[in-house]
Amino acid sequence: MSHAPSANLSARHQHVRTALDAHSLDALIVTALPNVLYLTNFTGSAAIVALTADAVDFLTDFRYVAAIESSRGTAHACPGLRLERVDGSYDAALAAFVATQGWRRVGFEAANLTVARHAWLTATLRNQHASTAELVSTEGIVERARVVKDDYEIATLREAARRLSRVADAVFDEVRRGRTERDLALAIDWRIRREGFTKTSFDTIVASGPNAALPHAQPGERTLSEGDLVVLDFGGVYDSYCVDLTRTVSVGAAGSRAREVYAAVREAHARAIAAVEPGRSRFAIDAAARDTLAARGLGEAFGHGTGHGLGIDVHEEPRITRPRPDVDPTPEAVAAGMVFTIEPGAYLAGWGGVRIEDDVLVTRDGVEVLTDVTTELVEV
Amino acid sequence: MSHAPSANLSARHQHVRTALDAHSLDALIVTALPNVLYLTNFTGSAAIVALTADAVDFLTDFRYVAAIESSRGTAHACPGLRLERVDGSYDAALAAFVATQGWRRVGFEAANLTVARHAWLTATLRNQHASTAELVSTEGIVERARVVKDDYEIATLREAARRLSRVADAVFDEVRRGRTERDLALAIDWRIRREGFTKTSFDTIVASGPNAALPHAQPGERTLSEGDLVVLDFGGVYDSYCVDLTRTVSVGAAGSRAREVYAAVREAHARAIAAVEPGRSRFAIDAAARDTLAARGLGEAFGHGTGHGLGIDVHEEPRITRPRPDVDPTPEAVAAGMVFTIEPGAYLAGWGGVRIEDDVLVTRDGVEVLTDVTTELVEV
Repeated sequence: MSHAPSANLSARHQHVRTALDAHSLDALIVTALPNVLYLTNFTGSAAIVALTADAVDFLTDFRYVAAIESSRGTAHACPGLRLERVDGSYDAALAAFVATQGWRRVGFEAANLTVARHAWLTATLRNQHASTAELVSTEGIVERARVVKDDYEIATLREAARRLSRVADAVFDEVRRGRTERDLALAIDWRIRREGFTKTSFDTIVASGPNAALPHAQPGERTLSEGDLVVLDFGGVYDSYCVDLTRTVSVGAAGSRAREVYAAVREAHARAIAAVEPGRSRFAIDAAARDTLAARGLGEAFGHGTGHGLGIDVHEEPRITRPRPDVDPTPEAVAAGMVFTIEPGAYLAGWGGVRIEDDVLVTRDGVEVLTDVTTELVEV
Repeated sequence: MSHAPSANLSARHQHVRTALDAHSLDALIVTALPNVLYLTNFTGSAAIVALTADAVDFLTDFRYVAAIESSRGTAHACPGLRLERVDGSYDAALAAFVATQGWRRVGFEAANLTVARHAWLTATLRNQHASTAELVSTEGIVERARVVKDDYEIATLREAARRLSRVADAVFDEVRRGRTERDLALAIDWRIRREGFTKTSFDTIVASGPNAALPHAQPGERTLSEGDLVVLDFGGVYDSYCVDLTRTVSVGAAGSRAREVYAAVREAHARAIAAVEPGRSRFAIDAAARDTLAARGLGEAFGHGTGHGLGIDVHEEPRITRPRPDVDPTPEAVAAGMVFTIEPGAYLAGWGGVRIEDDVLVTRDGVEVLTDVTTELVEV
């Protein structure tokens, strides 16, 4: 497994430190594990970071102490890391640690911390530790850095997409009449792991015939039959980064309706990708796909967004969607270094569906499609 | 896939309704997906339930509407379900729905709802909908029901454990000199899926030689060699229920220290299981394992708890641990119908480790071990 170089971690810390200044915070408590990984290269299952102007206080338990110690002095060590060993409860350790630091304003991640944990921490700081530290709600400080990938992340995602494309090429040969969706999904997952992915990045979707009308169908016992369209949506985690790809395959020669719907989705997919460039509104990219489908009478058939960001999470910012009524913290314009999916689809109840998905990087002057698999309709 | 009968769902609803009465709540908003599944049989990825004295208001989006409709009138339909379709944001839909119900006190799940969502819902109810509904923090209402399994759940977990035991028997044959941890983990995952599990219930652990000293090691490129102890920890999700099993295998004849440590862990495992019966303190069950290891000089080598509950989550209540300083909502005594792991271990830095794990059901008069695999030291 590779890790981000220490210099990249420093730049990420600097981003957070600028936010600490802007919000007059003495520290940011980072409880979201993907954010902890982003700031420290930690890939374990439990840790809390307190990032301050001059240090990265790192709370973890005995299971991970040896791994942290052994990364010291390496090219991917976390600069400024100070290890605090947790015995028992993380939140008890966190409260005790915060109380001894003399901090006044301590930011926490409101999109990660639950109401229950927040209430417990607040009460424990005050009642058990007689601390006057104030827990201050913050949102998206680390996520705003993560939305624009650095050179290490781009290289990792490019390699992951290259491997996932190889999986896709092989998967076309796995689509066979008489095979169950479930069995095909298992074969896909096996190939993903064989290509060096740690695991799948979500539960693989194999949706055949009428099941393809359900964008999130679970693979079942239905067998693939002549004339089916089969939506294959799968992804993997490579060196902690997620990629995601969809192709729709025809079992036997596709009928005229299938060709028509496929062509519409393919055009929507191409137009959305063509719309990607720095400064472009993510709503405009969504509209490029949506308007194409609407013009073909498939506006109602496209019920989800055109894409989502990729990175340590398989669904992250930016969201390539219609404008939404609730809070959406990401700026409207996409920027160089953002990586996201383009995945328009059309779903017709009782008939079936089509989705085509690639992963794209916004470059300085346009777009790079990271995945590389034919978008022509494959008939097997 | 099978589902809980409607009568079981009714009993689960009744449990929540009793809590509504006790807390003078008009409704409980259920946002934790495992709890939604428990109350409704819903296995999708997005839904919110508002459970009241006479209905189960069910918010979901277009992807799942057809599946919900088609379950109506079946033996596993959710009694009292009223479908509310979400277009766009779930929380916006939830706020609008709550505002129209005329409720005064609305419980929410404080261990699931984040501070950010809570703040947004509170502000939106008041400012956008001029609602006077009060959001009331609750903890563990559904989880307290889930901790004691009903007949459907016990049958499901029993079948899942039977299948996982078959996987374990086959896995012994997969342990071979020269094979990498990573490759062995892949073979285990394949067998889990082949036995009918939807997926693994956590990332499979294959930790060989010195790596076995790390209870949560990630399988890597190390090859299995003569004299290694190899910790194999894996599990699967079967009809939405999780099981979990660990065996430690010796590559070739085990040395005297390995036999000694293995025998100590095996005795700790047997004593903890022997301590399980209704009414027994879960701390006493933990102590049965811990004291056995301490008496053999391995007290410090056992750094984690003896077990955790199994169900819709792979880690749930009850926790079979030492008493903890922070809030632990489960009663101390275990009760008939609880299902949990017993998994003592001993980890010696630089040398290696041993863990033996089975899944047990507390019965009316004692314990049933659901998994069925030899605990003798297997040498391959």
